Amino acid sequence: MPIITLLTDFGTADSYVAEMKGVLLSRAPAATLVDISHQIPPGDIQAGQFVLSRTWQRFPAGTVHLAVVDPGVGSERRALAAQSDGHRFMAPDNGLLSFLPRESRFVSLVVAADAAPTFHGRDVFAPAAASLAGGGLIESLGTTITDPHQSPLPSPHHDGTRVIGEVIYIDRFGTLISNIERSAVEPGIRIRIGDVDVGPLRRTFADAARGALVAVRARGGPSRLPCATAARRGCWESVWGQKYGRDRNDKGTVIIPSLFRP
Amino acid sequence: MPIITLLTDFGTADSYVAEMKGVLLSRAPAATLVDISHQIPPGDIQAGQFVLSRTWQRFPAGTVHLAVVDPGVGSERRALAAQSDGHRFMAPDNGLLSFLPRESRFVSLVVAADAAPTFHGRDVFAPAAASLAGGGLIESLGTTITDPHQSPLPSPHHDGTRVIGEVIYIDRFGTLISNIERSAVEPGIRIRIGDVDVGPLRRTFADAARGALVAVRARGGPSRLPCATAARRGCWESVWGQKYGRDRNDKGTVIIPSLFRP
Amino acid sequence: MPIITLLTDFGTADSYVAEMKGVLLSRAPAATLVDISHQIPPGDIQAGQFVLSRTWQRFPAGTVHLAVVDPGVGSERRALAAQSDGHRFMAPDNGLLSFLPRESRFVSLVVAADAAPTFHGRDVFAPAAASLAGGGLIESLGTTITDPHQSPLPSPHHDGTRVIGEVIYIDRFGTLISNIERSAVEPGIRIRIGDVDVGPLRRTFADAARGALVAVRARGGPSRLPCATAARRGCWESVWGQKYGRDRNDKGTVIIPSLFRP
Repeated sequence: MPIITLLTDFGTADSYVAEMKGVLLSRAPAATLVDISHQIPPGDIQAGQFVLSRTWQRFPAGTVHLAVVDPGVGSERRALAAQSDGHRFMAPDNGLLSFLPRESRFVSLVVAADAAPTFHGRDVFAPAAASLAGGGLIESLGTTITDPHQSPLPSPHHDGTRVIGEVIYIDRFGTLISNIERSAVEPGIRIRIGDVDVGPLRRTFADAARGALVAVRARGGPSRLPCATAARRGCWESVWGQKYGRDRNDKGTVIIPSLFRP
Repeated sequence: MPIITLLTDFGTADSYVAEMKGVLLSRAPAATLVDISHQIPPGDIQAGQFVLSRTWQRFPAGTVHLAVVDPGVGSERRALAAQSDGHRFMAPDNGLLSFLPRESRFVSLVVAADAAPTFHGRDVFAPAAASLAGGGLIESLGTTITDPHQSPLPSPHHDGTRVIGEVIYIDRFGTLISNIERSAVEPGIRIRIGDVDVGPLRRTFADAARGALVAVRARGGPSRLPCATAARRGCWESVWGQKYGRDRNDKGTVIIPSLFRP
Repeated sequence: MPIITLLTDFGTADSYVAEMKGVLLSRAPAATLVDISHQIPPGDIQAGQFVLSRTWQRFPAGTVHLAVVDPGVGSERRALAAQSDGHRFMAPDNGLLSFLPRESRFVSLVVAADAAPTFHGRDVFAPAAASLAGGGLIESLGTTITDPHQSPLPSPHHDGTRVIGEVIYIDRFGTLISNIERSAVEPGIRIRIGDVDVGPLRRTFADAARGALVAVRARGGPSRLPCATAARRGCWESVWGQKYGRDRNDKGTVIIPSLFRP
């Protein structure tokens, strides 16, 4: 019973996700469908990449991951299938899969002539995902390529004794997630976000007073996942918003976490 | 393994959808449950009808579609089961199923005396849907009727050389979806929404500049589905809202797409 | 095919729910996953308790309910498994399971040393839930305890001829749900919310004019579930908000429903 995960920016109000699921279950009736997220901000390839990169390895090998954040749908951008570490992926060739290792296999999908130019999720990616779930090989879906579009998440840089990263994602709780690797965060270092001293790393959220900022290490699991320097759960509006006057749109531009030894 | 789809205006925060799913899985343990949408605006039968009409034929024959947008729950309005083209439907008799062909079969459900007058979704429709998923016939659930309530989506009218329709749905991306059939949209025609010239039909969203309006043909699939004259993805607030001063509540009243040859 | 339900305050935008589902399906591939809600307000244990208490008995015996509203994650608070009436539960020991009968069995989970202190949902509760779904016993997961943290929903009090309760939950439709038992609501009594006379109990929402307040009895199902004194569907903003100047945060403090005979 293969698993097919779905990640899109379609939201859950409209018919689009269900149209894809209807196609999937018509062609792969035994598949188990799991939503990763449909709340990726419209067209935000970086957010989609981050969420999928954190999630895919939690699923068993053999899982098919169907990811559609596709502002260029129907244009000249290619449609991809990929395989890595026993997992299979379907996504537009716009950088959404940039987290995959270089040695992954990539295929440029054949796009059927009657596919709607505005909805490849339903007419291109879902049929291909169902084919893989039914035992098909990615090579059967198109032409092998070696130059997928790469837009990896930004890397932190090292500046003498400091590691300077940026906030790449903000979650529902107001947690700011940076791109700094866990291994760069050693005991005793203090963390700043912009000009705000967040203090040293703590073990968990409850190690700081309610409403205070706290930095914790994310345990995203496998390597290659970013480290989180997080604000206290739920504090975004009350702390960052009201106290520091930040706006959610500051993400990645104004807020610069930097790590340094005291 | 029958599929049961669910469409409601219940949202996903409260317990209501899960209460229905508990009833469904208690009575039809092998059913595959698929959410179509639970974000239909409260009581908006037209939006529910539109979303379900776009979706149901994507699922395989035999699927049971459970649709509850039911402002008159517990009143004299009947509770329906219906069958069309191998699909089965459960819904209140308030027009939610008006997209079904006239030759569909309709049954008025027997409502158990202990059903909560405020929650037929859980106590009337879910048990009936589970019965169908288990192999029951719609005729076993009540009395055949031939006069279901009809509130079809509005039709466009033809005015000499023009087709005048209206916006019947706005999706997450700000796409305005009109009720004009694909066949009415011929190459070369220009499209207006209200007094705004959107230009000729394009193939896909990327065929217009970012932030510009673009009209595309929807490929809803089977016939009887409306045609979309869409704004550029994501542009609702920035284009319609800020530039043209529209409000989302203008839907269907002020905004009148009209198609005409140049 | 065991069912595992999930209730969290994680939202559905981020990766967290899917990370848990990946763990569950990796370890219990035949499990059927059902979302109860992921929209519990962050850290709101009372809301989580209410939603789960209304829902769990709708599922068949044998179901595993995985509930994570866990502001104290990684702190000294224990992690629990519980069993009651053939159902099994996983939750932090913070009162989320206070609706369970006193005679339920409780186990304090062993927390693996490599569990992320910030994400017990994925690293502690999900593996334990998968173990139970696979046939494990709750006693195998840790040490039996008899003193789980108890934070039951508030009880109404009886004041001569009046029953005075409070609003414990507001749903998507603006329905105010009180903690007054169905049995306390006798025919003929009038209901007040704060200083507003809502009138006598009606049978269903449609028994009042559109936009008017209406009180109905909830049929939550099994006993021990609260009674709803509800406002007309969808009226929260227009009636409570604009007419009575209420704020959603008034919940449970200012708004006091009281029931009295006329």
